Amino acid sequence: MAHIAYVNGRYRPLHSAAVAPEDRGYQFADGVYEVIKVLGGRPRDLERHLDRLARSLAALDIAPPMTRRALESVLHETLRRNQLANALVYLQVTRGTAPRNHLFPKRARPSLVITVRRPAFPSEREREQGVGVITQPDLRWGRCDIKSISLLPNVLARQSAAAAGCREAWLVDREGIVTEGSASNAYIVDAAGRLITHPLNQRILGGVTRSVVLQLARQDGIEVVEQAFSVDQAYAAREAALSSTSSWLLPVTSIDGRPVSNGMPGHVVRRLMALYAAHLGVA
Amino acid sequence: MAHIAYVNGRYRPLHSAAVAPEDRGYQFADGVYEVIKVLGGRPRDLERHLDRLARSLAALDIAPPMTRRALESVLHETLRRNQLANALVYLQVTRGTAPRNHLFPKRARPSLVITVRRPAFPSEREREQGVGVITQPDLRWGRCDIKSISLLPNVLARQSAAAAGCREAWLVDREGIVTEGSASNAYIVDAAGRLITHPLNQRILGGVTRSVVLQLARQDGIEVVEQAFSVDQAYAAREAALSSTSSWLLPVTSIDGRPVSNGMPGHVVRRLMALYAAHLGVA
Repeated sequence: MAHIAYVNGRYRPLHSAAVAPEDRGYQFADGVYEVIKVLGGRPRDLERHLDRLARSLAALDIAPPMTRRALESVLHETLRRNQLANALVYLQVTRGTAPRNHLFPKRARPSLVITVRRPAFPSEREREQGVGVITQPDLRWGRCDIKSISLLPNVLARQSAAAAGCREAWLVDREGIVTEGSASNAYIVDAAGRLITHPLNQRILGGVTRSVVLQLARQDGIEVVEQAFSVDQAYAAREAALSSTSSWLLPVTSIDGRPVSNGMPGHVVRRLMALYAAHLGVA
Repeated sequence: MAHIAYVNGRYRPLHSAAVAPEDRGYQFADGVYEVIKVLGGRPRDLERHLDRLARSLAALDIAPPMTRRALESVLHETLRRNQLANALVYLQVTRGTAPRNHLFPKRARPSLVITVRRPAFPSEREREQGVGVITQPDLRWGRCDIKSISLLPNVLARQSAAAAGCREAWLVDREGIVTEGSASNAYIVDAAGRLITHPLNQRILGGVTRSVVLQLARQDGIEVVEQAFSVDQAYAAREAALSSTSSWLLPVTSIDGRPVSNGMPGHVVRRLMALYAAHLGVA
């Protein structure tokens, strides 16, 4: 079946859908996006995604393309037309189309594109044995808290990871701090069993899955420390993990080719994976 | 007359030209561009622009969309169809269209878009009285030497400048160094009459106009110092200037509301403006 995309008011087969060459998303990366997980026909953690979308738009002074209620309705209609029970919804809003000029256009209307595709969730092997990451310099801009489409550095880091046979690149700033992955948040568990992850600030994107995982951990009595950790701390960690909407929560069992602890997923991360699956109703 | 755009093999009126929503330029800012000045029907400094395009593509491991000779031919044909003697050509190459995934697609063909528009060159007033700039934090990524479409921080800086009634924002890094403008290179002239500008490295884009201006300065016996300068040095400069393909070389006569020297263009910058105009054959 053809994928159906929603593009600026119309539902079209994705292969014939089109945006303007002067859409500012195409010429300036002047837009934001969300990726939303759908299981059993239901978008998950939708409120958190739409809250974040609103924050990203506000940070860039882009007007919402429609009311939240209308957006939810378009999202559900796009989903319905694609007839996928399990899916990833991709939703992008840009500042709109205008003759090329760095300055915000006065009259452009925001563009909205929604696509839906079959998800490639982690394999059973990845969940049971964990995945490897490499570290890469964090070359991104200074406002990583905005979920912008300005993703070129993320793409390059991720490609380097794949070239090294790893699932993800952990980004390291000039002070040796692991900020996050190219498309996921990063965690370690220390010797005391505490879950450590970078605090929310302009250096990282506040992941929806991150917020859920931290909430589940706290409810379960796991101590959560939102504090920067270094590469050396990561090498010495008892456990490590990454999370994102499409990766869920995954054990990280090697960093730069070095096994984390004994190289197998540990009990804190496995416990959190189970809690996250239960949160999604798939435990 | 309608603007004619070249998009992936076809010449179309710009208003009906289209790119795919899954073009990686739209979802990942995974592409590069050039802006080329046309005067009297002739693209200027074309070799330098195409050399830089080749360097940007190579840095991102994007294949050239066609041979250089074919590209020149398409560029001239697009120009011919637009019938503008004076113009700005915008040329963008992205990694192509593929289902959304950070990893480089295996089979995508690079996208090529060329648009042409009437230029808005600086006014006589701007050339004679100079322009104002404000300083803004340089929030850009770590590879500003690649002329990528990942321009969101540039857009935001430029918008701040306009909100302050200024033409440009000069970007200042964490060490207090002026790297360059949001869409132009930055210069000062010190008390000894030396032209100072940031050296070529990963913090700035090597402007084509910058390379021409430095060459003209050296040929004219003006001492050129490719060395970082601070905001304080800029405040204390005898003269200041900015350059870009669309701005040419322009005197900067105020920085953060403070007049540069006596607030009027100085003789080194005016001499270089004349040399640059002569280089273009419009003196």
